[in-house]
Amino acid sequence: MFKILKKHSKSKARLGLLKTRHGVIHTPFFFPVATKATVKSLTPEDIKNIGFEAILANTYHLYLQPGHQIVKKMGGLHKFMNWSGPIITDSGGFQVFSLGAGFGNNVGKISKDEDIKENINRTGKLVKIDDDGVTFTSHLDGSKHRFTPESSIKIQEDLGADIIFNFDECTSPLDDYDYTKKSMERTHQWAKRCLKAKKKNSQLLFGIVQGGLFEDLRKESAQFIGDLPFDGFGIGGSFGKGEMKKALDWVIPYLPENKPRHLLGIGYLDDIKQAVKKGIDLFDCVYPTRLARHGTFLTNQGEISIAKGIYKIDKKPVMKNCSCYTCQNYSRSYLNHLFKAKEMLGSRLATIHNLWFMARFMEKIRKDIKNDRNI
Amino acid sequence: MFKILKKHSKSKARLGLLKTRHGVIHTPFFFPVATKATVKSLTPEDIKNIGFEAILANTYHLYLQPGHQIVKKMGGLHKFMNWSGPIITDSGGFQVFSLGAGFGNNVGKISKDEDIKENINRTGKLVKIDDDGVTFTSHLDGSKHRFTPESSIKIQEDLGADIIFNFDECTSPLDDYDYTKKSMERTHQWAKRCLKAKKKNSQLLFGIVQGGLFEDLRKESAQFIGDLPFDGFGIGGSFGKGEMKKALDWVIPYLPENKPRHLLGIGYLDDIKQAVKKGIDLFDCVYPTRLARHGTFLTNQGEISIAKGIYKIDKKPVMKNCSCYTCQNYSRSYLNHLFKAKEMLGSRLATIHNLWFMARFMEKIRKDIKNDRNI
Repeated sequence: MFKILKKHSKSKARLGLLKTRHGVIHTPFFFPVATKATVKSLTPEDIKNIGFEAILANTYHLYLQPGHQIVKKMGGLHKFMNWSGPIITDSGGFQVFSLGAGFGNNVGKISKDEDIKENINRTGKLVKIDDDGVTFTSHLDGSKHRFTPESSIKIQEDLGADIIFNFDECTSPLDDYDYTKKSMERTHQWAKRCLKAKKKNSQLLFGIVQGGLFEDLRKESAQFIGDLPFDGFGIGGSFGKGEMKKALDWVIPYLPENKPRHLLGIGYLDDIKQAVKKGIDLFDCVYPTRLARHGTFLTNQGEISIAKGIYKIDKKPVMKNCSCYTCQNYSRSYLNHLFKAKEMLGSRLATIHNLWFMARFMEKIRKDIKNDRNI
Repeated sequence: MFKILKKHSKSKARLGLLKTRHGVIHTPFFFPVATKATVKSLTPEDIKNIGFEAILANTYHLYLQPGHQIVKKMGGLHKFMNWSGPIITDSGGFQVFSLGAGFGNNVGKISKDEDIKENINRTGKLVKIDDDGVTFTSHLDGSKHRFTPESSIKIQEDLGADIIFNFDECTSPLDDYDYTKKSMERTHQWAKRCLKAKKKNSQLLFGIVQGGLFEDLRKESAQFIGDLPFDGFGIGGSFGKGEMKKALDWVIPYLPENKPRHLLGIGYLDDIKQAVKKGIDLFDCVYPTRLARHGTFLTNQGEISIAKGIYKIDKKPVMKNCSCYTCQNYSRSYLNHLFKAKEMLGSRLATIHNLWFMARFMEKIRKDIKNDRNI
């Protein structure tokens, strides 16, 4: 189900083909995030036309709204949202901790210090973790809910994605060694329970490596999870700047060569390049789409905040030589106007451009591996 | 430039062809409203694919944001917003009075009593009208502005629409006879000044009939405006329920048969049918698009509010046998979810459906005239 087509001679990067029930994914691949069964502002046709083969949806969000039973009754996520390609769902673990504990605070996977501070009250009243599972409070209406490894798998089976994840606890860089170790051991027990709980053979199940920023824990986790019969592996956790590379160096040697590796929630361009070179195959992140909704465009010259006054009168497209629909048809001036006037079309056009940019970025990485050029 | 192709034998309806610099408009026609140079959430391609030949943009809104000079520098509205078909701009008169005086209150063209009450303080501090023009306060930032017939024409020339309107004062059904008469006479003087101010020959200029709900004033206004060398005529004013038909009966006999007639801001299905039968050729209204953004879908069985609980589990499309993109691809259940979750895609899919519905509605009216069937 995962085939390595070519190995890069200049790094540990690999070109691969991941086969799922709903089609193949050419790796290294970046999943656009369809949090609530929609890549915000776009249709499935838009996503395909931009060049994406697969998307990622969030179990936590869909469990709360509209509810996994409803998605199941509608025939599963593919039918519900009219997406015929592969879908991956996360396990809900990351959201339970960051949204539950953070309660609206945006805890990134590559966190700034101020983000991290918001993420440390996971033992507070909104989230209670025990060895059996997690009790949490909905960020939507304050109602109480409980996730266990078994219920996370059941929810993901009801949603019906092609690739699902084991339920894990995501630790923060601020956690001490003892807590990180205890949490990692819990995640390991949950991984075994998830494998046991899984009923459908048609879905691929990926395990998640944790262990925070501690070398021995990361290695222990990679070895433990890597030895379990998962179809692929996620690398979880929230990293400080620069710590991601170290963690990948510790973890990857322990993961089976012939199975796909997903670096969860990472999407900055430079991080993707570094991770691909360490042997990562899959990525997902809200970065390009969230940025787009704030009027920030990704370009070869860096990020452009289109609402700035300097773009008020500017006939040029956002990015020179970009062949996306937005750059082919609209000026910076018009996009500046749409964002100043808070027009929905602005978010749509920016999302198209940023995802187009990401698709081409990943395409180039795949070509570089294929042609054995520097990434 | 306006050709009547066929007259209905069962009413005063006519099938027509309105030629503009950017293409023809088959009448009776409904203009989707692109207030700020965008039909909210849709691209120009969407609008064309739905079946619309032309759109209407608002002078008042574009004057304030991004400013007519900027649109002009960008090559005019067509280039700015990437719409290659005909565009019509209103004169700003209606918005100055309703937005200026109402300051955020939505004064409909067919007003409920409670709407009307909000619309009577036009002599209040936000709008000052004198015989030369109007001084008003921006609803965006409180800044002071002045429109005169000459400046309205200049702004509309800078925007560069194919059809523009004379600057008028829109009266309310609560205005007494004396005020309505005085206002109408002012509008008549402004109409002559607009004709004189117009510099570009490439744009068609439409005059606007006012006169409120008073028979003699409506007739006087229709005769006065109808005798001026306008390329077409708008019928303005805010009507109480049922009063629109009366006003049309008074006005239409005085308007030249061979020129197009636009009933400004009217868009309810039944009103359109009635007005077509009285001899109206053109319509515009935010009704279908605004409704869409509130999750209300137009159907053959009436309006459907998709966020209602009864649609939570419903595999059916919004409207049976509808061939719009939304009904062909999405269930009520998914649309219910999108609106409950406040997802932008919901507004987009609803706008596509409602405009598709309007386009087919107008198509049927044109066919009924062509085949001399009852409308």
